[in-house]
Amino acid sequence: MNVFGNKVIRIDAKEKANGVSKYAADYYFPNMLYAEVVHANISHGILEDIDTEEAEKIPGVIKIATYKDVPGINKFGHVVEDMPFLVPIGEKVRFEGDAIALIAAESPEIAKIAKKLIKIKVKELPGVFSIEEAIEDKILIHDKSNIGFKRKIKRGNLEKAFNDADLTISKQFETGYQEHAYLETQGIVTNFSTNLELYVSAQCPFYVQKDVAKILNLDLKDINVIQTETGGGFGGKEDVPSYITAKAALLSYLTKRPVKLIYSREMDILETSKRHPSKSYYKVAFKKDGTILGVKSKIYLDMGAYSTLSPIVMYRTMVHACGAYSVDNVDVEVLGVYTNKVPCGAFRGFGSPQVLLAIESIMDLAAKKLNIDPYEIRVKNALEIGKKTSTGHLLKESVGAKKTLKKVYIASNYEKLKREIQEFNEKNLYKKRGLGWAHIFYGVSLGAGGQFLDGATAVVNIQSDGTITVMIGNTEMGQGAKTTIAIIISEILGQDVSKIRVLQPQTLFIQDSGPTVASRTTVFSGNAVKIAAEKLKENIISFLSSYLKVQKEEILFKDGYVYFKNKKFSFDEIAKLCNDNNVKLSETGWYKTPKLNFDHENGIGEAYITYSYATQLSMVEVDLLTGKIELKKVWVCHDIGKVINLEGAIGQVHGGIIQGMGYVLFEEIKQKNGKILTKNFNNYLIPTIKDIPNEFNVDFVEDEFSQGPFGAKGLGEPSLMSAPPSIFNAVSNAIKKALNKIPISIKDIITEKE
Amino acid sequence: MNVFGNKVIRIDAKEKANGVSKYAADYYFPNMLYAEVVHANISHGILEDIDTEEAEKIPGVIKIATYKDVPGINKFGHVVEDMPFLVPIGEKVRFEGDAIALIAAESPEIAKIAKKLIKIKVKELPGVFSIEEAIEDKILIHDKSNIGFKRKIKRGNLEKAFNDADLTISKQFETGYQEHAYLETQGIVTNFSTNLELYVSAQCPFYVQKDVAKILNLDLKDINVIQTETGGGFGGKEDVPSYITAKAALLSYLTKRPVKLIYSREMDILETSKRHPSKSYYKVAFKKDGTILGVKSKIYLDMGAYSTLSPIVMYRTMVHACGAYSVDNVDVEVLGVYTNKVPCGAFRGFGSPQVLLAIESIMDLAAKKLNIDPYEIRVKNALEIGKKTSTGHLLKESVGAKKTLKKVYIASNYEKLKREIQEFNEKNLYKKRGLGWAHIFYGVSLGAGGQFLDGATAVVNIQSDGTITVMIGNTEMGQGAKTTIAIIISEILGQDVSKIRVLQPQTLFIQDSGPTVASRTTVFSGNAVKIAAEKLKENIISFLSSYLKVQKEEILFKDGYVYFKNKKFSFDEIAKLCNDNNVKLSETGWYKTPKLNFDHENGIGEAYITYSYATQLSMVEVDLLTGKIELKKVWVCHDIGKVINLEGAIGQVHGGIIQGMGYVLFEEIKQKNGKILTKNFNNYLIPTIKDIPNEFNVDFVEDEFSQGPFGAKGLGEPSLMSAPPSIFNAVSNAIKKALNKIPISIKDIITEKE
Repeated sequence: MNVFGNKVIRIDAKEKANGVSKYAADYYFPNMLYAEVVHANISHGILEDIDTEEAEKIPGVIKIATYKDVPGINKFGHVVEDMPFLVPIGEKVRFEGDAIALIAAESPEIAKIAKKLIKIKVKELPGVFSIEEAIEDKILIHDKSNIGFKRKIKRGNLEKAFNDADLTISKQFETGYQEHAYLETQGIVTNFSTNLELYVSAQCPFYVQKDVAKILNLDLKDINVIQTETGGGFGGKEDVPSYITAKAALLSYLTKRPVKLIYSREMDILETSKRHPSKSYYKVAFKKDGTILGVKSKIYLDMGAYSTLSPIVMYRTMVHACGAYSVDNVDVEVLGVYTNKVPCGAFRGFGSPQVLLAIESIMDLAAKKLNIDPYEIRVKNALEIGKKTSTGHLLKESVGAKKTLKKVYIASNYEKLKREIQEFNEKNLYKKRGLGWAHIFYGVSLGAGGQFLDGATAVVNIQSDGTITVMIGNTEMGQGAKTTIAIIISEILGQDVSKIRVLQPQTLFIQDSGPTVASRTTVFSGNAVKIAAEKLKENIISFLSSYLKVQKEEILFKDGYVYFKNKKFSFDEIAKLCNDNNVKLSETGWYKTPKLNFDHENGIGEAYITYSYATQLSMVEVDLLTGKIELKKVWVCHDIGKVINLEGAIGQVHGGIIQGMGYVLFEEIKQKNGKILTKNFNNYLIPTIKDIPNEFNVDFVEDEFSQGPFGAKGLGEPSLMSAPPSIFNAVSNAIKKALNKIPISIKDIITEKE
Repeated sequence: MNVFGNKVIRIDAKEKANGVSKYAADYYFPNMLYAEVVHANISHGILEDIDTEEAEKIPGVIKIATYKDVPGINKFGHVVEDMPFLVPIGEKVRFEGDAIALIAAESPEIAKIAKKLIKIKVKELPGVFSIEEAIEDKILIHDKSNIGFKRKIKRGNLEKAFNDADLTISKQFETGYQEHAYLETQGIVTNFSTNLELYVSAQCPFYVQKDVAKILNLDLKDINVIQTETGGGFGGKEDVPSYITAKAALLSYLTKRPVKLIYSREMDILETSKRHPSKSYYKVAFKKDGTILGVKSKIYLDMGAYSTLSPIVMYRTMVHACGAYSVDNVDVEVLGVYTNKVPCGAFRGFGSPQVLLAIESIMDLAAKKLNIDPYEIRVKNALEIGKKTSTGHLLKESVGAKKTLKKVYIASNYEKLKREIQEFNEKNLYKKRGLGWAHIFYGVSLGAGGQFLDGATAVVNIQSDGTITVMIGNTEMGQGAKTTIAIIISEILGQDVSKIRVLQPQTLFIQDSGPTVASRTTVFSGNAVKIAAEKLKENIISFLSSYLKVQKEEILFKDGYVYFKNKKFSFDEIAKLCNDNNVKLSETGWYKTPKLNFDHENGIGEAYITYSYATQLSMVEVDLLTGKIELKKVWVCHDIGKVINLEGAIGQVHGGIIQGMGYVLFEEIKQKNGKILTKNFNNYLIPTIKDIPNEFNVDFVEDEFSQGPFGAKGLGEPSLMSAPPSIFNAVSNAIKKALNKIPISIKDIITEKE
């Protein structure tokens, strides 16, 4: 082991801290224009007219583009093309953020003035603003039912399960929106050379490339999407940058000038996707020992006006609906409904936090009714090798689920902790503490629902001074991918992490490696990089063994040196020697998974290549007088197969928990007739430094996954997923009331007191 | 065959013609500074002081850098580090173009004013301005003899050869400078991101990267050299861009701002390298049937103030000194001498035009004395399989030398042509026509003198719409490399050339592939691309054969389609299918040659991997009254193994002949005390459209080279090399006087008349 387990300084920390890293807004090109977007500002209606005459008179307004200017296909949609790029006259407006016109002007100020002068005429129609209204189908948003998509698992004999049950719990849950609240808003700057250059803050540059090609009717070879430093994504920069980049790219295409389009926070919240609000109905059968016999559930996700990624989100909702447990009798139905509101899409957890909240709440309820400790009921039902998930996926390896439960149990000194809490609560009248368990699993990468995108590439170059440059097809968006990739190379070649540069991806240089989502970068790009680095190692060893007349096995790479027999040379010297002898020092790696067997009709089979597992125990303190909820302490343990970058992994877990906490406790999109009222952080409240717990106890289980690089699985999303149910249960336990809705309202607490 | 032999439109023609391609001067970055260089303007002396005080007072002057500001090694030199980057106080100035100080200012105008205000004090020393003065060694330019380098071939028994000779010809020759006269002068723009970005007009971006790393003491991973569209190189952008880029890069490093440094033509001619002036002394032994028995020659090349690439140039001079003939007794000595003049370096032909002029002139003299036709004497001595070159390289394949002679003989209808010329000359008193033969060979690529650089890489990506992007480690500088590379891919994968984009190289993305010189791109990058494209083809075939259940052999790639059995799909559809099935669509290729056996001490062995051959017959008309020389017609035939791009090859030959004509007829650098007087094209005359011959008859021989891609060898330099001796001989024959000096002076002609 060269690096694993060592403290590694994040390789992009310094350049980010000292301001050298360039985000989209940092790009300027000569002769650049500034773009604005004219939105519908009406939730439902027919577009009757776009009057740009007055706006066009403003000096400095260079181009106002409408649907008429689109050279390619004027539609978006990764699964179904139901979303207009620019709404055509005579067609429908379906939410306030629909784009009607685009402005390119010499300055942002001029663009803003022009925006005010563009008059759009929309014949308003009554809107659909809730899941309940949507499923009535009285007002149709598209030409068909508002229930746009269905997914289901139907497995085993549920009727028998409920007949055999000692306990049946039925409950309904409701969850709200969540805004990604990335530090950096959406942004894009275009430029020209022999091809179009698009500098984009994005998770998925290949999506952007393909979507822009479609809108502009260009070859992929003519569009280079360069991912800029990206200040957070969380799913919000999965498909959304395509829609935004196409706007700037069209203006650039029409004016033949560079165009800059940086979203304000207000515009970003108004137009871009959120976590799906949900309503879910659960009925779960238990034996009296706590064993889950069956789960029936019906889950509605509010897709908003367009389907975007919802059908794919729903796949994950379905697979995670029964939680991290072995369940043999299952009837899960997930329905995506259209409403006249902001489209919802990808968000860290991707449709699973909504249902994990429900099932984990029910586990607590059942434990209470059956008089079992909430810890014990989870251990009882936890997955292990030889058991099957709710989709009937027989697990054969890398199931550290129970180990995560046990580690949290021990680390928290749980039995003592329970007593302390009881004592605290007895002593305090208006302050109550509660503990909340959550045990979750996470299907790593895209799974059977998106396997056609599940390959990834890397190109690794050893420079002639021994420093190494690498480009992967996945992106760094703040999650630490670059450091993980550098560590994997360092582990194999022994070169120091500080001598490795991970380059920003460019779509013309590297093969489409699918999206950077689904916690798949470590496994996919990690494997691709590992393959490439191992080829390089083999090239070097082959050369050295014949050049130095030593056996291949005698050559070792470690700590920046290459050792053979009793000699050592620095890796830098060896690189120079190899370069001078024309050794191949550039290699590509490509990783893809074997095909998964999955029956999409019944939702049965191998849903994902593997699963990560996590257990979280949270302690909250609730002030019954003010309604204030404090997350005091957290114990969490993740089975991620192998910890490649310990510091990075801990950081992910901290961040995930805080974002998960915001989801449960603070964050709320308020709307009126489908229009968002909370368009900045003064009224959309996210956790701040003052809200974070005093104590994070983060630990890991390394139950290696044979396909993962060095055994690694994914962590990006599970780091969030354990938090909402754990905190939710802790609050419920503190106030002794089974809650069923997030964000938790002050009324839920204060009412309790009265 | 998919493409070979078809007329292919140059893939970068449109973007260059419509102004989309970006040359260095087209790059602008915000906050950019403009650089100027302060030269010594004295040919020899000791630098005593640099006074920047007044210049620094000018508003808008941001930084004046001197040797004190260099963080790394303040020296250049690819073979010997004998050249200061910025001359230190107390050390020597050795030619007028030595750089003393660098200025970065807010505008080019401010930089120019500041330049005038910098006072430098140099204690002048007497200078060395000719080869004769240099070899006297009375004034030493460096601390050692002015004869800096020697190369020699010593083979066979020369004494016996001269004893056995029926005819011995002794003659001395003199050749002048040649300026590259690329359309685009030297230029560089720097920018910052997390690494230094250098946008450079260059043939050899990896040289630039390494040299700047040395000057600035940076890792290679921190320097991305992006080759901009390059408007001509001809060797003048081999090492020179390193020196110029380092200037801008240092200013950028010191100011933390982008810096632009674009050379004026005057500065470019003043400071940058030229073709070496030479003096050579030949003594050649012949049998009466025309057979060459032996060659003794001593060749002096004027290196100027610093050695730069001279020792490598001298290697090629040595190998080509006996011409394209089989010679067994050889004593060739090449000497590189320092003078206080502009350093000389790489130039298309690389030290061979000087000696080919001499030996080909001698062949004509011998033919005349022995009463053999100049065509016949060349056929008699020409190389063929089983014969040895002057270095004793036994030729085993791909020797089309005699075929090129024969083709020119037939195409020109030589016997009739001779009669016509005789008739013309009898009829005309003051206008005389002459025919001149030249037969040359060219050692392809770097050869035994530079084999440590002789590898090349390519990365080829098939985009998911079937368009293809490729990056090679060699550069397009106008010679047509991109089209050749695209044709090779098209030949293998069947995809249309117009759907292939060849990207500008970036040193952080791709392995060091050596320099783009020595006519090596087609062989090296061509092979690398071929290897990568064949891997891709294999990946696709493997997938399709299992996906479609067909035999691998049944799958064919042709004309943009993939055929199997009686079905066909477009390549675009197949690419999409492969992408959706996670087929690896990105591959690297790496090509290097087997090691050459060469004894550098005696100049004996395999000098190059293979040789190209060419024969040229030129017809000139000389006006004895005015001295005007017109090149009327040219017949030329090249053996380049395989013609990959017919249009491109013809273009290369046209360009080479015109540049070769300029060398013989027009181009002259005039100096006074080492200082250049002819610093623009008003007094340094190059051929114009009015000077080109009425008739170019270009033909090719395809004697395939087993190591070349589809058999190809190199053409870039031989296209020039046949022209000077052929035109020189034609003029000599027209005026009936054996000339021995180029450029041919009007006095040589007019004197003849008197």
